[in-house]
Amino acid sequence: MDAFSIREAVPGDEGAILGFIRELAEYEKLLDDVVATEADLNQALFEEGAVAYSLIAEVDGLPVAFALYFFNFSTFAGRKGIYLEDVYVKPEYRGKGIVSALLRKLAQIAVAEECARFEWSALDWNQPAIDVYTGIGAKPMDEWTVFRLDGEALRKFAEFGKS
Amino acid sequence: MDAFSIREAVPGDEGAILGFIRELAEYEKLLDDVVATEADLNQALFEEGAVAYSLIAEVDGLPVAFALYFFNFSTFAGRKGIYLEDVYVKPEYRGKGIVSALLRKLAQIAVAEECARFEWSALDWNQPAIDVYTGIGAKPMDEWTVFRLDGEALRKFAEFGKS
Repeated sequence: MDAFSIREAVPGDEGAILGFIRELAEYEKLLDDVVATEADLNQALFEEGAVAYSLIAEVDGLPVAFALYFFNFSTFAGRKGIYLEDVYVKPEYRGKGIVSALLRKLAQIAVAEECARFEWSALDWNQPAIDVYTGIGAKPMDEWTVFRLDGEALRKFAEFGKS
Repeated sequence: MDAFSIREAVPGDEGAILGFIRELAEYEKLLDDVVATEADLNQALFEEGAVAYSLIAEVDGLPVAFALYFFNFSTFAGRKGIYLEDVYVKPEYRGKGIVSALLRKLAQIAVAEECARFEWSALDWNQPAIDVYTGIGAKPMDEWTVFRLDGEALRKFAEFGKS
């Protein structure tokens, strides 16, 4: 099959990226949670004060995969890190090493930017992904649990001090 | 006991913040991992291109607690969120509601900045903290595990494609 190449996302990619986000959400059985628009992505990725960054993998000039990340911060290290929010490859382009190549490119960006670490999350039932992640030497942070406050619970807590 | 007040961190607070980070690391049995310096914190919090933000709680003008956060990004929401990296109250000032007040202030910032969500992590054995978090309506994201690549493993993967 065809070779792939990786490049930084540029304005005009927001349609392809939103398509990838929706396909990923469908795979994670979370499609109903996707309310992002192309305008949202354009603002977050490409406008002044951008908060996120994206890589695109292409085959014959066609986007077939993406990785979207932002910078977090380690207080212990006193340095920023890379957090990979999403990585997705269209099903017909899997098995070509595209995920590994995207992860490696992000690791290279992390090293170049003197980041303390490179992190991402996996759903516990997504064993194929977990096998890739442990295979490249990533450590599962098993002893930590993320807590989330959103929607009505967030608004109520902000307003009344409880949800 | 004395009342407390909450304010944004300003240049000059980096010494107090580093002290809090070290005390927190000691509580988490991770003090050896702290290599951050005051200069690192000054750059991350107060210089051009700051990547993190901090709130300070004071009693009688003395810093007794802090919360340090950054903005992450939800691809599904298409909006940024707040991620609380650290929150810590000096032992002698606990039980006064300072953690809840810091969390509430962050929830208010999240709402004001139109964030999709407000998140943070807890160690699974830190039941007192978990009780506070579930008490304010936060959901544990039990089905997700964070993976981390850092140190020599990160450098090797960036260079050779494996660690």
